Amino acid sequence: MQKTRAYSAASPTSALVAAMIERREPTDQDVQIEILYCGVCHSDLHQARNQWSDFMPTHYPCVPGHEIVGRVTRVGSAVTKFKPGDLAAAGCMVDSCGVCAACKASDEVYCAKDATFTYNSPDRHTGGHTLGGYSESVIVDERFVLKVPTNLDLAAVAPLLCAGITTYSPLRHWKAGAGKKVGVVGLGGLGHMAVKLAKAFGSEVVLFTTSANKIEDGVRLGASQVVVSKDSSQMAAHTESFDFILDTVSADHDVNAYINLLKRDSTLCLVGVPEKPLAVSSVGLIFGRKQLSGSIIGGIAETQEMLDFCGKNGIAADIELIAIQQVNEAYDRLLKSNVKYRFVIDMASIKR
Amino acid sequence: MQKTRAYSAASPTSALVAAMIERREPTDQDVQIEILYCGVCHSDLHQARNQWSDFMPTHYPCVPGHEIVGRVTRVGSAVTKFKPGDLAAAGCMVDSCGVCAACKASDEVYCAKDATFTYNSPDRHTGGHTLGGYSESVIVDERFVLKVPTNLDLAAVAPLLCAGITTYSPLRHWKAGAGKKVGVVGLGGLGHMAVKLAKAFGSEVVLFTTSANKIEDGVRLGASQVVVSKDSSQMAAHTESFDFILDTVSADHDVNAYINLLKRDSTLCLVGVPEKPLAVSSVGLIFGRKQLSGSIIGGIAETQEMLDFCGKNGIAADIELIAIQQVNEAYDRLLKSNVKYRFVIDMASIKR
Repeated sequence: MQKTRAYSAASPTSALVAAMIERREPTDQDVQIEILYCGVCHSDLHQARNQWSDFMPTHYPCVPGHEIVGRVTRVGSAVTKFKPGDLAAAGCMVDSCGVCAACKASDEVYCAKDATFTYNSPDRHTGGHTLGGYSESVIVDERFVLKVPTNLDLAAVAPLLCAGITTYSPLRHWKAGAGKKVGVVGLGGLGHMAVKLAKAFGSEVVLFTTSANKIEDGVRLGASQVVVSKDSSQMAAHTESFDFILDTVSADHDVNAYINLLKRDSTLCLVGVPEKPLAVSSVGLIFGRKQLSGSIIGGIAETQEMLDFCGKNGIAADIELIAIQQVNEAYDRLLKSNVKYRFVIDMASIKR
Repeated sequence: MQKTRAYSAASPTSALVAAMIERREPTDQDVQIEILYCGVCHSDLHQARNQWSDFMPTHYPCVPGHEIVGRVTRVGSAVTKFKPGDLAAAGCMVDSCGVCAACKASDEVYCAKDATFTYNSPDRHTGGHTLGGYSESVIVDERFVLKVPTNLDLAAVAPLLCAGITTYSPLRHWKAGAGKKVGVVGLGGLGHMAVKLAKAFGSEVVLFTTSANKIEDGVRLGASQVVVSKDSSQMAAHTESFDFILDTVSADHDVNAYINLLKRDSTLCLVGVPEKPLAVSSVGLIFGRKQLSGSIIGGIAETQEMLDFCGKNGIAADIELIAIQQVNEAYDRLLKSNVKYRFVIDMASIKR
């Protein structure tokens, strides 16, 4: 084992503080990555504060972070795709059984023996739980290490590893593209990526936001229209007109208002995880055979496809770079949606 | 106009009582049907009592009934498919614009100018509202009159016009058939048809019921297993194993428990209309990209296809035949789920 600097929460009510953690020695299949940047995902906050206790209780100490970009410092003897000095990334998963049908199909998130998430999962190597990217380095099985486009701002690439793939995957699955009218609900970390990606796929993009002061940004990011969702006449103008709506909101909200905007046989896909169940009117689904669905990240192959697509199309996140010492303040601002549109930690700061 | 005997409700709290109503004189396109049998659908009760005031308020007097089987007594000069003496049926719709894209595709329920439902819809001919099948006769545009298989018990055919098509359509749409494991939630009017139809399509059918005393019937109707849904260990045994689940329950219930039983990328379809919104956990949809959907009856062409299928496969409803004078008592029993599995009114009784 090797000691590594990290920021960790000791309990649901503790601030994140500097701590030394242990990482395993790299195996033959492992890649050791010096973390340059790590995005701050809303999930990090939920998990650090044990807000998902119903379905994913938090193990402490908790080191969040699953939007990791860095440089390879060491590789195991069997590693073929990476060498020291390469750029590399890791996202929401760092391991899985590797042999089940889902893993063989690169649907690792559906591993029959459960994927190992980047933090707060049982660690297949150490027997403890995994510790995430708010840290100066991480050890990841080569199968879960991603290649990073070299033409993008590295800090702005970090959020692609969660916010990017979480929106890319459903947009691809439900065939967003030319000739399709696509709605994006919420302009946060996920929503701003969804607007950029849906636009890059050739869709007509309509952004829904509760904040009139986000209209200008929505247009800049690629929306052809921005609808202030509190305005019922603006909402009504889009009744039954959407081929697909991606709902990125993780607070309680009225999904029925958006289901009403779907064309017949079309889908509203949730990627946010509100703490409480949503109230869904069966009538809204029944009249029009509409679908309410959800989607979680994507497999490793699709994540690489997304990174390659973003490289080719010059797409990265809009970020606010912070030092790790500012992470607790960043969480407070996250709760107020006061970030455009993703905090990314400059991990050089951890050595201060 | 011509006077016709019917049973009608005068207000949300009134019993159904005998009344004389007016029907239009048949146009050139119309078929006049002497009603022999009319099924009693739970929707009849909801509508008579104005329980759907939010989205479909009731116009009084209300004559319910949209599961109509009878004999043609008169046809307009342009009618080609029916002649006096023929058996005929009418279901949930009796008219639509006939020229929009949905009507042309026989998706009349999605008519751009709104389908005319068999009762409580604006009547395209009289300017009043439509009056349903609790009556001795009805006048229906030929396009909405269906041919009836001659090999089945006519009284037991009546419920096919709503309960039959409402379950047939989603089972076909989501491709229930050989090699598929299909769940049916609830053993009532819709549920018992869903079990029969899914079995006839070649699916492995699992019935979910809250009543252990329905196990024997579920098996008799075609279920390979009957799960008592209150038993969490029985439920857990089916985790992530279903290709499709059809949920026929119109009372409040926990849909998340059934979403958990779906395979990845599979669908739970609602055909019941609970009065209040359902509480839906986004996590259940997100992990497995599962779909919650709904479906409403089917078009006229599909309804005819369903009737033909039932004729060929000897499928009709399990019914309890009543006189129209018993309809208020039947409603009381319906609220207690005390019917196996559909009341059908013997309309000869209206002349008593």
